[in-house]
Amino acid sequence: MIQMAGIHSSALIGSNVTLGSNVSVGAGSIIHDNAEIGDNTIIGANVILGEPLAAYYSSPSQYVNPQLKIGPSAVIRSGSVIYAGCEIGENFATGHGAVIRERTMIGHNTRIGTHSDIQGECIIGSYVRIHSNVITSQHVRIHDFVWILPHCVLADCPHPPSEELFPATIEAYAVIAANSVILPGVTVGAESLVGASSVVSRDVVPGAVVVGHPAKQVAWAADLKSRVTGEPMYPWRGHFLRGMPWEAKGFAAWSKERHVE
Amino acid sequence: MIQMAGIHSSALIGSNVTLGSNVSVGAGSIIHDNAEIGDNTIIGANVILGEPLAAYYSSPSQYVNPQLKIGPSAVIRSGSVIYAGCEIGENFATGHGAVIRERTMIGHNTRIGTHSDIQGECIIGSYVRIHSNVITSQHVRIHDFVWILPHCVLADCPHPPSEELFPATIEAYAVIAANSVILPGVTVGAESLVGASSVVSRDVVPGAVVVGHPAKQVAWAADLKSRVTGEPMYPWRGHFLRGMPWEAKGFAAWSKERHVE
Amino acid sequence: MIQMAGIHSSALIGSNVTLGSNVSVGAGSIIHDNAEIGDNTIIGANVILGEPLAAYYSSPSQYVNPQLKIGPSAVIRSGSVIYAGCEIGENFATGHGAVIRERTMIGHNTRIGTHSDIQGECIIGSYVRIHSNVITSQHVRIHDFVWILPHCVLADCPHPPSEELFPATIEAYAVIAANSVILPGVTVGAESLVGASSVVSRDVVPGAVVVGHPAKQVAWAADLKSRVTGEPMYPWRGHFLRGMPWEAKGFAAWSKERHVE
Repeated sequence: MIQMAGIHSSALIGSNVTLGSNVSVGAGSIIHDNAEIGDNTIIGANVILGEPLAAYYSSPSQYVNPQLKIGPSAVIRSGSVIYAGCEIGENFATGHGAVIRERTMIGHNTRIGTHSDIQGECIIGSYVRIHSNVITSQHVRIHDFVWILPHCVLADCPHPPSEELFPATIEAYAVIAANSVILPGVTVGAESLVGASSVVSRDVVPGAVVVGHPAKQVAWAADLKSRVTGEPMYPWRGHFLRGMPWEAKGFAAWSKERHVE
Repeated sequence: MIQMAGIHSSALIGSNVTLGSNVSVGAGSIIHDNAEIGDNTIIGANVILGEPLAAYYSSPSQYVNPQLKIGPSAVIRSGSVIYAGCEIGENFATGHGAVIRERTMIGHNTRIGTHSDIQGECIIGSYVRIHSNVITSQHVRIHDFVWILPHCVLADCPHPPSEELFPATIEAYAVIAANSVILPGVTVGAESLVGASSVVSRDVVPGAVVVGHPAKQVAWAADLKSRVTGEPMYPWRGHFLRGMPWEAKGFAAWSKERHVE
Repeated sequence: MIQMAGIHSSALIGSNVTLGSNVSVGAGSIIHDNAEIGDNTIIGANVILGEPLAAYYSSPSQYVNPQLKIGPSAVIRSGSVIYAGCEIGENFATGHGAVIRERTMIGHNTRIGTHSDIQGECIIGSYVRIHSNVITSQHVRIHDFVWILPHCVLADCPHPPSEELFPATIEAYAVIAANSVILPGVTVGAESLVGASSVVSRDVVPGAVVVGHPAKQVAWAADLKSRVTGEPMYPWRGHFLRGMPWEAKGFAAWSKERHVE
């Protein structure tokens, strides 16, 4: 069997790197200076952690790599690149070839899909699901429990190229379906649903369903029914459990306990 | 010259891996346990074959990697990742960084383009051309001779996130132009053409041309004429030969011989 | 610190490769035969330069790799693949995992973003900015100072699949916003702006703003005003300086000096 546990002999580990207990680092992977990786993290092959920032290229000899922190129990799949200066919570996962640029902050139990490109200084919450090949501008704010499906773009520049940038905000429990573009400065409201291939040019009110180019409200999420059972499909936390903190007991019971605590 | 023939000394080969004659494995590539690779296959650099499934991460010590089978004469380009449990016919090819998830079945003479992401348990026919950066859901069914152009998405979840999934079906000789989204449960009929950036929400009848958001039928493929010669462009098998089994003698003669056999 | 200067011991360098002074080659990178890399170029990890063309696979023993030339002061980020036969000017940069196919010609100070896929034999000017995950067909012509934002596709085949190909042309200073498709044979005129998620089926006149599916002219770029200052945002060279040759003194003064020279 190919060695997957422990530090592969072909991996390269920089200075001042702290690896927790039971961390594995795959063949050909590189961990640059000043990274701190939590216990039980599994790093695949050809991963780069703590990738140096652009400042490195202009003066390599004076450059100090910012700290990268990744919490315990992450799975970083092959070919992913996470820049220095990021701070990521526990139970993180990436697909293959995901790129996360510098100083992005990510909560816990979040997943960034294959070939996605998070352009840096973003703030991403917990239990967020970013699917394959999603591209965000810098400084985007994505709240907890957001789903962004494949091929979406979160843009920040209304008149490119310019230095006037307005990153998007995606509020909790919102869902953005495949191939949609969120235009600069837009807030996608909590528990809303953006249909596939939409172009969202104005704020989406909480709980709305918007579709089209430009996207317009066509329904409320609460009115959407299952094709199978006829039951309401939103709020999705009522029926979707897999990987969520309420997986064992359902949202209602989980939520009630949290408020008691 | 960089060594491209034979097994590069930096490649890693797992247990119970069977390599056919004249197989080459590029630098930094990894072949996990229980893979069977056909004769004359060329594997580029930093390829991963037999990538372990998610079950590995939950209990590494008990995990047994499913068999990956790749037929003879494949060209797997650099950075591609093919999961364990796939079964792929002869003359397969990938672009760079293609990802094919577990238990996908692929016929012969099929190509999966650069950065495409086939999400697993799909059934893909022979002589299929999937271009760059196409994303399919799990369980998609793509028949023989289908073309899917860059940046298309085949979705499966009408109310994400949910466990109610309806993978798409693409029938033989259908063509899906760039940046289109095929919505859950849709069947794109044989010999049809989906225009660029379409959002296909209903079944496409065989031979139809559909465009738009949502896609509507605007013509029959048989009525589309060449800009150059004025001759009909569909069915495309009548004039497109490159890489097809009728390359030497044309579709009509090839088809006739097959029926005689 | 991980070695980033010099040639990493795990890098592979082919025959007849010329490396300028102060070139660094990252871990696991491969430079195939007949490449010429300019001074002060920084090549990240797992990069492939001079990737052999398809002809290699049909007759490896007779194959001669065409020359790849990359000018001085390039930054080629990890996982990028540049094919043999390309010729690229000075101050070139790529994101991670960019793929540039054979015989593409690129001017100076141009950048190709993460996961973009330039399909070969393209002619790309100077100071061009191609963002993440842009896909071009073969033979595309992109003039100087063009911006192409994430997820755009430049198509060349009106009736796929066919051998009748009409690559697109993008003229100087044009800007194509995210997720747009430029259809075959289209010329996007100088200083024009294509809105996000547009499908451009007809030529765009210089200075026009087009949006939609199919894209229609909705304004002139010169009439677009800043959300912040109310000042005109186009031509963008009047206010956007970063990385441009007029960065130090502004476009007007820079242009005047050039004409005097």
